[in-house]
Parts: sequence; C-alpha cells; structure tokens
Amino acid sequence: MPKINVYTDISEVEREAKKDYIDRHSPFIHCEPSAKAGETFEVTVQVGADYQHPDDMDHYISSVALYNKDTKVAEATFFAGSQGGQDKKGNTRVSFGVVLEKDATLVAHAYCTKHGVWESLPEAVAVA
Amino acid sequence: MPKINVYTDISEVEREAKKDYIDRHSPFIHCEPSAKAGETFEVTVQVGADYQHPDDMDHYISSVALYNKDTKVAEATFFAGSQGGQDKKGNTRVSFGVVLEKDATLVAHAYCTKHGVWESLPEAVAVA
Amino acid sequence: MPKINVYTDISEVEREAKKDYIDRHSPFIHCEPSAKAGETFEVTVQVGADYQHPDDMDHYISSVALYNKDTKVAEATFFAGSQGGQDKKGNTRVSFGVVLEKDATLVAHAYCTKHGVWESLPEAVAVA
Amino acid sequence: MPKINVYTDISEVEREAKKDYIDRHSPFIHCEPSAKAGETFEVTVQVGADYQHPDDMDHYISSVALYNKDTKVAEATFFAGSQGGQDKKGNTRVSFGVVLEKDATLVAHAYCTKHGVWESLPEAVAVA
Repeated sequence: MPKINVYTDISEVEREAKKDYIDRHSPFIHCEPSAKAGETFEVTVQVGADYQHPDDMDHYISSVALYNKDTKVAEATFFAGSQGGQDKKGNTRVSFGVVLEKDATLVAHAYCTKHGVWESLPEAVAVA
Repeated sequence: MPKINVYTDISEVEREAKKDYIDRHSPFIHCEPSAKAGETFEVTVQVGADYQHPDDMDHYISSVALYNKDTKVAEATFFAGSQGGQDKKGNTRVSFGVVLEKDATLVAHAYCTKHGVWESLPEAVAVA
Repeated sequence: MPKINVYTDISEVEREAKKDYIDRHSPFIHCEPSAKAGETFEVTVQVGADYQHPDDMDHYISSVALYNKDTKVAEATFFAGSQGGQDKKGNTRVSFGVVLEKDATLVAHAYCTKHGVWESLPEAVAVA
Repeated sequence: MPKINVYTDISEVEREAKKDYIDRHSPFIHCEPSAKAGETFEVTVQVGADYQHPDDMDHYISSVALYNKDTKVAEATFFAGSQGGQDKKGNTRVSFGVVLEKDATLVAHAYCTKHGVWESLPEAVAVA
C-alpha cells in the first residue's frame, strides 16, 4: 500500500472496459534492445498503447518515472492540461536520454491522480 | 520491481546491522490520530527513528512522498547536502500541512539513491 | 521569462484586491535567525500570511522550493486537493529539516498553476 | 535571487572558458516552429549545444523544466549518474509530448546543482 498496479497483457482480458482501463493507465517502454556503453541512449515511455487517458483537471497522468532495477534514473512531471486539458484525452509521452554502463532492466511507473501507480513490463537492455 | 521495501518491526530483527539498515531507510509518520475536517493537519515524516542515514553525494535520501491510501498528497525532494553532506549522517524530515475531509490512511515512501524505495507502516487518521 | 513575481510589502499597496493577490501567492519563510552548524534546523514556508489561496483543481499552489542563495535545498510538491479541494482555500505549508554549515540566505519560490512563480523575501540565517 | 542565468549568444563571448560555461549550462529548445491544435507536439530540450556538462555526483544537471510563457507545462528530474556518472560528461536531454491549443512561447529552465538556474531563449510556436 499504495497499490502498485502491474501491467497484465490485455489480450487475455475479456471485458472491453477493463482492457481500456488497464491499457490507458500503463506505461509502455520503447527503446532499442541494446545500447553502447557510455553513449546516450533514448528511452521513450508512453502511457497507453491502444487507448487514451483523460487529461481532466481532477484526473490526469501527473508523472512518469524510469527505473533501472531498483534505482530511479529520471522522472517527468506533467501538469493538467499538457495533453489538451478538460474533456480531452491523450497519451502522455516522454523520452529521456540516458547513458547506461552495463546491462539494464528498465521499468516505468506512471501515476494517475485518480487511480494511483501503474507499472510497466520490464524491458531488458544489453549494454556492450 | 522496483522493489518496495516495507518496514518491519526491528525489535524482531536480530542482527544489529540489519536493524540499522531497516530503520535508517524507513519513513516514520508522526501525526495526531484524529483530525478536524477542513482544518490544516500537520503530518511529519522522518526517515529513521533510532538510526541515521548517510548524506553522501552518491548515497542520500532524495525524496519523501506522502500517500493517503493510493493517492499521492504531497512529495518533498531533497538534494544531497541537505543533511550536512559528505561523511555526515542525519534524519531527513519534512512536515506537510494538509487538509483531510474524511478518514484517512496515510503511508509514506522514502527513496534512497542507493537502496531504492522504502515504505512506512500505515497510519490511520480519524476525521470528524 | 517566465516572470518571477517578487514579494513587495503589501502595507504599501493600496487596493485591497491587489494586497490579497500578492499575499496569497507569496511564500513566507519562518525560521530562527540563527542556527548551529551541523544540527537540524527547521525552516517552515507558508504560502500566504493574511490571505488564503484557492485549492481548485485548475488553480492551486503546486510547489514550494527552498533555496540557499542560488542553490536549491529542497522542494515540496502538492497535488490539487491537499488544502481541501475545489471551492476551498488554504495556506499551503511545509517544514523542511535542513542542516546548514555556514551563514545562509534562504529564499523560497511558490508556484501557482495559474499565476506562475512567486518569490519570498530573503531570510538571513547566522550559522555558528 | 536565486539568480536566473539567461542564455546569451556565445558567438559574442570572447573567452573560450566562458563560452563553454554558458553553453554547457543552457537549455536549448528543439521543436517545429508550428503545431496543430489538439495534436501531440514534441518538444526536445537539450542542455548544452557545443559543449558538455559534467555528470559528477556533486555537480550535475538535475532538472529541466518547460514553460509556456509563465505556466509550467512539464519538468524532468534526473539523478546523478544518468549521463554516465563521475568524471563523465554529457548533454542531458528530454523530449516531452505536449498538446498546444493556441500560439505558445516556450522557455526552458535547467538546474545545475552547483551553478543554479539557467534559462533558454524563448521559442515561439504558431498553433493553427
């Protein structure tokens, strides 16, 4: 507590409303599967893949944090309105340029002001 | 993943080093057990009770977040040096003035730049 | 740009609405005038002294940062609702425990989601 | 106070050390000059253009904030080590996906843990 909602494959979820609920809250990591040590490596995190989240004043995605295993690497904070504002929907997205020195396991957390913390699937990056 | 280290009563831990490790990383919530709805209520979070945490440049407590159940209420960020700096130790402490409208269950997270996320015991507040 | 609104003594402001506007947005630092080097020193920052600021979803105080001269020491982030929520008003308040090693000049910034950055008067702390 | 260091064209600066100092601390905004209302628009902020900033534990770029005039749109926080760590240098970079509804004037702030706040040149975006 607080609950960490871990992403589960929505293709195995039956109800459409639940697929939408899980997908629109979950951060998805997009990056290459391998990186060169010491060079800037771009990691994009987008909240929602097939569905969009409201950007209402009282219900929006306010932060996206990037972890490498247990260590926080970077975190982006968004204000209500960044995705169009009241009655609009969007997919909050941020790209961080980071330097990895050895094999990494990236995980992202997104925070919804109404539905709490959501965790991505882990993403392994081979570093050479 | 990332691991959420949940506080466990150190009086039941045998090894001194482990007591120290758990205590100095754990956020402890200090507040009255009841609050008046609509009035400012002070919630203090201190990291560590009987032990202190290093404030080294590469190893310090960088944030303390306060949740009411799954909802983040406030978060404080500290920079290395706020507790005396390299080779010093301290107990990072912050007090938030918050207004509660109904019964609350407060939980705090502390983040150590080397040892990740630590969670306090929950603290129930009756609001009338 | 962005504009940094620096506090000006409202006793010299004539219009009541303007007094209110300046006061309710300005962070005020409350602390002792002197501190002991190496010991925890409590610095409280309250936004507004004689007037209160709305805590509406689209108009609230979302952060309070504490600087020592040009260096950020700590920052607290608040979510809409922390001061009672829609149609309520309050004085956002946070206390940081910090360790000072030499004479300090503290300054606070508050950020209002509608009216931007506001700066306190500087507060000198003699450290011995 | 704290000082906001506003970028000045380094081609008009004579001393190499000063060019380096200004450039490596300054955030540079990279985006298209126009955006479509209601659509996600990517804004990249990179700290430093021709020079790189250290990523030392006690001296690194810890945040990059994006403003539209006086309003904060998003902010990214980085931890020491994100650009390679002690004795390495880099250009902290973050891209935010934001939705603009009308003509915007973007400005970025970068914060260096040793040399404070640095402000970019403003970047006008025509929104249609």
